[in-house]
This record gives sequence, C-alpha cells and structure tokens, in this order.
Amino acid sequence: MSGKNILFLFLLLFIPVSLAAHFLEWGDLVVFITAGLAILPLAAWMGTATEEIAVVVGPTLGGLLNATFGNATELIIALVALNAGLVDVVKASITGSIIGNLLLVMGLSMLLGGLRYKEQKFESIVARVNASSMNLAVIAILLPTAMNYTSIGISEQILQNLSVAVAVVLILVYALTLLFSMKTHAYLYEVGVADADETSYKKPNLWLWCGVLLVCTLLVALESEMLVDSLEVATSQLGLTSLFTGVILVPIVGNAAEHATAVTVAMKDKMDLSLSVAVGSSMQIALFVGPVLVIAGWVLGKPMDLDFKPFELVAVAVSVLIANSISSDGKSNWLEGTLLLAAYVVIGLAFYFQPVTPGIG
Amino acid sequence: MSGKNILFLFLLLFIPVSLAAHFLEWGDLVVFITAGLAILPLAAWMGTATEEIAVVVGPTLGGLLNATFGNATELIIALVALNAGLVDVVKASITGSIIGNLLLVMGLSMLLGGLRYKEQKFESIVARVNASSMNLAVIAILLPTAMNYTSIGISEQILQNLSVAVAVVLILVYALTLLFSMKTHAYLYEVGVADADETSYKKPNLWLWCGVLLVCTLLVALESEMLVDSLEVATSQLGLTSLFTGVILVPIVGNAAEHATAVTVAMKDKMDLSLSVAVGSSMQIALFVGPVLVIAGWVLGKPMDLDFKPFELVAVAVSVLIANSISSDGKSNWLEGTLLLAAYVVIGLAFYFQPVTPGIG
Amino acid sequence: MSGKNILFLFLLLFIPVSLAAHFLEWGDLVVFITAGLAILPLAAWMGTATEEIAVVVGPTLGGLLNATFGNATELIIALVALNAGLVDVVKASITGSIIGNLLLVMGLSMLLGGLRYKEQKFESIVARVNASSMNLAVIAILLPTAMNYTSIGISEQILQNLSVAVAVVLILVYALTLLFSMKTHAYLYEVGVADADETSYKKPNLWLWCGVLLVCTLLVALESEMLVDSLEVATSQLGLTSLFTGVILVPIVGNAAEHATAVTVAMKDKMDLSLSVAVGSSMQIALFVGPVLVIAGWVLGKPMDLDFKPFELVAVAVSVLIANSISSDGKSNWLEGTLLLAAYVVIGLAFYFQPVTPGIG
Repeated sequence: MSGKNILFLFLLLFIPVSLAAHFLEWGDLVVFITAGLAILPLAAWMGTATEEIAVVVGPTLGGLLNATFGNATELIIALVALNAGLVDVVKASITGSIIGNLLLVMGLSMLLGGLRYKEQKFESIVARVNASSMNLAVIAILLPTAMNYTSIGISEQILQNLSVAVAVVLILVYALTLLFSMKTHAYLYEVGVADADETSYKKPNLWLWCGVLLVCTLLVALESEMLVDSLEVATSQLGLTSLFTGVILVPIVGNAAEHATAVTVAMKDKMDLSLSVAVGSSMQIALFVGPVLVIAGWVLGKPMDLDFKPFELVAVAVSVLIANSISSDGKSNWLEGTLLLAAYVVIGLAFYFQPVTPGIG
Repeated sequence: MSGKNILFLFLLLFIPVSLAAHFLEWGDLVVFITAGLAILPLAAWMGTATEEIAVVVGPTLGGLLNATFGNATELIIALVALNAGLVDVVKASITGSIIGNLLLVMGLSMLLGGLRYKEQKFESIVARVNASSMNLAVIAILLPTAMNYTSIGISEQILQNLSVAVAVVLILVYALTLLFSMKTHAYLYEVGVADADETSYKKPNLWLWCGVLLVCTLLVALESEMLVDSLEVATSQLGLTSLFTGVILVPIVGNAAEHATAVTVAMKDKMDLSLSVAVGSSMQIALFVGPVLVIAGWVLGKPMDLDFKPFELVAVAVSVLIANSISSDGKSNWLEGTLLLAAYVVIGLAFYFQPVTPGIG
Repeated sequence: MSGKNILFLFLLLFIPVSLAAHFLEWGDLVVFITAGLAILPLAAWMGTATEEIAVVVGPTLGGLLNATFGNATELIIALVALNAGLVDVVKASITGSIIGNLLLVMGLSMLLGGLRYKEQKFESIVARVNASSMNLAVIAILLPTAMNYTSIGISEQILQNLSVAVAVVLILVYALTLLFSMKTHAYLYEVGVADADETSYKKPNLWLWCGVLLVCTLLVALESEMLVDSLEVATSQLGLTSLFTGVILVPIVGNAAEHATAVTVAMKDKMDLSLSVAVGSSMQIALFVGPVLVIAGWVLGKPMDLDFKPFELVAVAVSVLIANSISSDGKSNWLEGTLLLAAYVVIGLAFYFQPVTPGIG
C-alpha cells in the first residue's frame, strides 16, 4: 500500500471527527478545518470509483461518466454553497479553480517532476486541442464580466440573461468536445486510454464501485454542508475575506484529488497526462461546472450570473497567458514550475490584500 | 456553371427590387434587406474583376490593385455611411469586420472544411508573417481607445490628433507590407500567385473587366446609399441597436465575398489560402480601411477618431487571442471551427444585450 | 579602432562640457542634454569592464557580476532620481525600459540585421526560457496596478505592502533564475559563454578593470545627479510631460549600451545573442531593478509602490504581446523589425498626447 493510500485512510478519520465537532459544538473553525480534511480522501475515492466503473461500462459511457464526475467534488461543494446563498463564494471558487489548476497544480507538477528529471517533454496533440478549448471556454465565461466592466447602465437582469445564454452555449460546446474526443477524433486520445488500462488487469466489480461512488457522494455532500455552514464564521476568525476563501481555500479542497494525480504522474515523467489533468480540469470548470451552476442557481431561485470581480478577470487572464507561455514549447523544468508557483503566490497576495467591498460578504 | 454562380445571378434580381422598394416606398425595412442582398453579388463580381485585371497588368500593379480593392465593398459602404454622419456605425463596422473575419469566416472555413477532411494543415510562412502584421495593426488601431479608457481628461481634440497620427503610421506600415510581399520577399508569396494563375488559361480582356469593375463599383455605391438611408429606421424596427448593426450586420454584408471565397477554398482543402483571406482581410481593415476612413472623415468634415467602445476593444482583443491560439499549431479540425463560431456567438450575444448608451444613436 | 569606439571617445568630451554647463550655469536644458550624452560612453565602458572582470573571476562569480551590473546605469539614474523625490519619473522609467527593450532595441536589431540578411534565425532554448521568465516577471510587476485599477477603496498603505511583498517574491525568482542558468542547467547557456571568450585571447588585468568600473560608476552617478537636477526644468522647456520623459527619454539614455550591443551583434547575424540582450534586459528590469527600487525607496524614506498608470500597464502588455508574436516563429526579417518600431512610435505618440494628470508633476 502506497504512502498516498495510507494518508487517505488516515484522513478518513476526519469524517467522524468533523461530525463530532459539529454536533458537540467545538466551534466553527474546528468544523471548517475537519470537514475540509474529510473531503480530501472522499474526493480521491470518488475519482477511483469513477475510473473503475468507466473500465466496465466501456469507453463511450465511461468517457461520459468521467467527463461528468471529474469535477464532482467541486460541483457538490458549489451547489451546497449556492443553496446556502453564498453566491459570491461560489463565483469566486469558479475563477479560483481555474487559477489553481493552471498555476498551482501545473506549477507543482513541473517543479516536483523537474527536481527528478532535468527536462520533461509533453507534445501530444491532446494537450494542444485541450488548450484551445480551454482558452475559448475561459474567455467566454469571462465575457459578461468584461462587458459589465466596460459598459455603463447594464441592469442585473441583462447580466443574468446574458449569463444564462452564455452558459447554454458553453454546455453545447462541452457536448461537442465530448463528441470530438469520443467519436470523430477518438484516435487522438487513445494513448490516454491505454494508459488507464494498464492499471487494471482484472475486470472491476461494477456494483461494488457504484456503491462506493454513491456512499462517497453522499458523504461529500454531508461534509460540504458542514464546511459551508461554518465557512463564514471560521474564515472571519482567520481574518480572511470571503473572496480570498472562495478563490484560494475552497478550490484547494475541491481540487485536491486532481492535484494529487497530476503531481504523482509528473513524478513518473508522464507530463502529457499531468498537463491534461490540469488543463482538462480548467476546461471542465469553464465549460461544464460554471454553466451548470448558473442554470442551477436559476432553478434553485438563487440567481447567479457570470459577472465576476474585475480583478478575478485579470487574475484568470494572467493565469491562462502564463500557462500558455510556459507550456507552449512542449518542455518543462523546475524553473518553469517555480515561475508558475511564484505567479500563484503573487496573485494570492493580491487577493489577500484586496479590501472587502460591498457585495462581497 | 456552379451553384454559387447561379445564386449570385439570382441575387442580382435584388438590384431592381431594391430600387423599386426605394422609389415606391415599400418601407425602410424592405429597402434595407433588399439593398443588403443586392450588394452580395456585386461584391463578388468586383472581386472577380479585380483578379482578372491583376492577371493582365502583371504581378506588381496587380498586387497593388488587389491590395486596394480587396476590401472595396466595405470601404464604399463605410464612406457612404460616414458621409451620412453615421460615425458610430462606421466605427463599429471596423471592429466588427475584424471580429467577423477572425471568428465567423475562419470558423466557418475550419468547420465546413473539417466536416469533409479529418485534419487540415496550413503551415506556410505567409500565414505567420500576416498574423504578426495583423496583431500589430489591431493593437495599434485599438491604442487610442485603450488610452482614453485608462486616462482622465483627454479632450476630443487630443483623441482626434492621436487618431490621425496613428492612421498615418498604419498606412506607412501598410505600404511597407506591400513592399515586403511584392519586392523584397516576393518569393515567399509565390505559391499564392501560382494558385491564381491556374484558374485563368487565356489572357482576360482588360477593358471588359475594367468596365465590369466600374459598373459594379457604381452599383455598390448606389445600393450602399439606400442601405445607409434605411439603416436607422430598419434596425430600430428589428429591435437592434446601431452598435449591434455596425458590429454584426454591416460586416456580414460588406465581407460576404471574402466569406464565400474562404469557405469555398477551405472545402477544397486549401486551408493556407483560406486563412490568408481571413487574416489578410483583418489586416487590411486595420492597416488600410480604418486609417483611410479616419483621414476621409477629416476631409469630409465628419471627424472620426479611433476611440471605440471599450467593449469593442475587449471583443477584438479576444478574437485575436482565440484566432492566434487556434491557428498556432498549423492544423485545424471541425471542433476548432466550432470553437471559433461559439466565440462569435458569445460575442454577438454580448453586443445584442449591450444597452443603448449616449453617443450611440 | 572601430567607428563605435571613436564615437564613444568623442562622447567622453561631454563629461567636462556637462560639468562646465552645470557650474557656469549655462541653463538646465544644456546640462540635461550634455549629462545625458556623457552617460552613454560611461555605460558602455562599465559593460566592457564587467565582462572583462567576469572572464577573470570565472563563470559563477562572473555571471553574478553580470547579472547585478547588467543594468547598473539604469539603476544608478533611478536611485539618484528616487533620492531626489522624482518617484513618478522612476516608475515611468521602469515600464519605459521594458517597452524600449522589447520594441525599440529588438525592432532596430531586426530591421538593421534584416537589411543585411534576408532572413535571420534564432532558435536557442535560452531565448525561450528567458521569454517565459520575462512574461512572468512583467505580469507580476504589473499586478498591483491591475489590482488598484479594477478595485475600489484600496489604500496607499495596502498598495505599498503588496508592492514590497511582490518585490520580495520577484527577487527570489531572480535568484532562482540565476541558480538555473549557472548551476542546474548551465549547459543550456554554454553557447553564450563561448561567444564571450572569443573576444578575449589573453587574461585581462583584474585591477585595471576594477578601477575602470569604479571610476565609471562614480562618474555615472555624478552625471546622473546633474541629469536629474536639470530634468524637470529642461523637459518642461521642451514641452514634455514628466511621464513622457520617464517612459521614453530616460530609458533611451539608461539602456544605450544594450541598444548598441544588440544592434551590433544583430548586424553580425547573431540574432540569438541580440534577442537575449533585449529580452534578458527586460527580464532583469522586472525581476531585479524594479524590485530593488521598491525596497530602496522604502529604505530611503521615499516610498515607491508598483502602482503604475493604467496606460503604462496597457503599453507594457501590448509590447510583450507583440514581441512574443513576432519572435515566436524563431525567424526575423526587416518587416518584423519595422512592425516593432511602428508599435514603439504609436505607443510613444500615445504617451506624448497623454495629458498631465494630478500625481504626475
């Protein structure tokens, strides 16, 4: 059993601890931290269950499953927070997830991979196709913000309508992206599939893994409830604004599984796969998670538009530009990883120093 | 006779229909639509005439002719609209043409080409040189807007002076670009010339085509007059702002010939030529059409500066970034075409939802 | 003796002339111009002395010396100006140096090199690594401006704290960049070292060159004092704002040595080296000179933050985008050089027309 698995088993202990903290009223800060820690192993097991089920049901249905459940943890936390009315935190977590995947995940992968290998290469077509889709998706999801920031007299209603329209277009694009990668150009992606096959020699038990997925999903939802309930008091005790919480803290918890995967494979010199995880996750957030949240907010009666803070727009644009600049040569080394992490630190500092403004709790 | 030519012959019928609509007062909406349709075949014939004349007069003079008349339809519509005082529509049509060429034309070409061919390549040096010039030209033409948006207390006069100065620099750059492509580095462009030669086995009749060019130019000017006269009433009947009209509708009419050419050659797997048309046309608008309109406005006493709406700046910048991102790998497929079209739709939605502000009719 | 050296000897005459102008009170304009001219040969000799000393003390210490003294002239002028309280000019000179290196130096190199050679290539890994670091550094140094521009209610103190924090991160990144280029990946940079060796067959005299470096540094500091003292009156006599002076004039004086080197080697078809100078100097300004000035301002009691004018942000972003776009294909010709110079002229025009606003003298 690997060190990672032992860590995950240990972290499972935080499920009862967080429940105890909640019911015995040990304080919001303790609930917040323990619930956050409890989500990490559950997210990892949801990922494993999804992959095992995908192997059984075949590439097409499995691909769809992966595409839908790939960011499930994040989506669940965001839906719970949205239902609790924390619209600003949810919106901040969308931009924060994109920034975190492109700078923190990619940066850690390149740094830790680069400390072991002098130079790592990643030149597959998949990376390039994903990067284009990701660039488009990120730009599209930021357009309502750009429009609101550069125009005068745009009503809330117009922004809401534009956001829903953009969300519909993005979900359609996501469906077409799946059609491309699973049907018309599936051969481009075969390397990745072969790679997944390697790890499973005997056919996994479908019902077992469906059960695991179900239980983990329910537990993540439960822990998310406690995380969200304690969020406002806990972060204000830590002296953090809800913007910083949404942009930096929530995405680290929600994306921890991707972080672990991307870094692990980078240390095995599979940079193509590592970058696919980071870029693909950013793409899924902009093409699927974000749009679904806009439509869910509309259904739940908690209207959420895509009008982010202007500085979030700047931070995401900057992350995309730096990630493109560093990954465009198809090679990486420890310095490039450090540059990405430095960019993440500088952006984090800027969010830390950002004053509380009306509209953000 | 190809289907395209039959369609163009049919569209010629709209010349008498639009005249009837105008003189029999069938309403501005009918005049607007029929005049718009009548311009399409005229623009296509102007393009054919220019190319035939270019074959006769030789590469240098022919190249100059192509460079000057390449965007003639657009320039005529814009000059008529400028003379009628529709400065905002003219300015919007400049940014709209750039956006339309980079997203709509390139997107349709990649999509329709990609539905027939699994993967299409375009790797000529010409594409790269044009892309660099286009990037610079677009940035330069947007600088006065950026300056005005980011500074306080800039007078109209300063903006006008800066716009004229920028226009002069851009026309000089355009002249140098022609010198580069026709004299000092003409060998880079020889593929394109050979391609044009293929289609004409016998020497065309110079005077015939000069006559065609003259008649078409006059008719385009006539139809443009009717289009512009009916524009304000017609678009307000359709519930469209003049910004949307300028950014989306006018460029589709003005660039229809380029659209047809780019898509047709893309479907013959000549993606290099297809992209050259789209990128080259964007470049010509920023380096030649825009600057000429600034100077023409100054001469006509209808001062026009290069201070666009801030959101136009965002939309153009985004179009350039997406087009660069998608074309940089030298390959295309139907998904990339779809991504460009999706970006066009999202930007179109944003302009559709943009409220009417003072300064825009 | 080359023409360049004769010119430099001639320019040394401006040292006594500028002193005479200062003490005999010939007027601020004369002092300003003569002191500016006197700095040019001194900067060139400081560069030569640094390189000669680097040869003696070996690659590691020599590399550190080059990295620290590479932008010494600029740093000295900026420190003198900062001490005199000209914070706005110093800040403007940081952005101006980046713009000047990327557009003016790179543009002149590509143009003059391109007039002699039809096509020039530069494909070394060094150029790419430097470009990534430079992109990051420039983005990081601009983040406080972007944050201030897109947020409301940020106090001076917050901006100052954020600027110091960013400065510390950037200096750490600079140290890591040196570690990368001198230790862990030194083999990537060996071409450049060999190149430097060629020019010196016998071991240079260490003490002689240390003396030269010391004398030149003192003289540059002296001339900088006179330049800075006369700056405000002289530039207002020329009708220039202090913003234009800081962005355009001061960097031309401060970077003249790099300009001469980059253009000279470009004309010998060593484009890799030429671009390394331009990109590397931009990187050093953003990673080292700028951060050092922030910390020096704090020590000197002349607090300087990294909150530039919004249009400076636009101008630097645009310069980086154009330079990346033009250099990304690894080839250059005279047209690309002209495009860079045209961008510099357009940006210069925009700064020239920028009105004086409160906060800028």
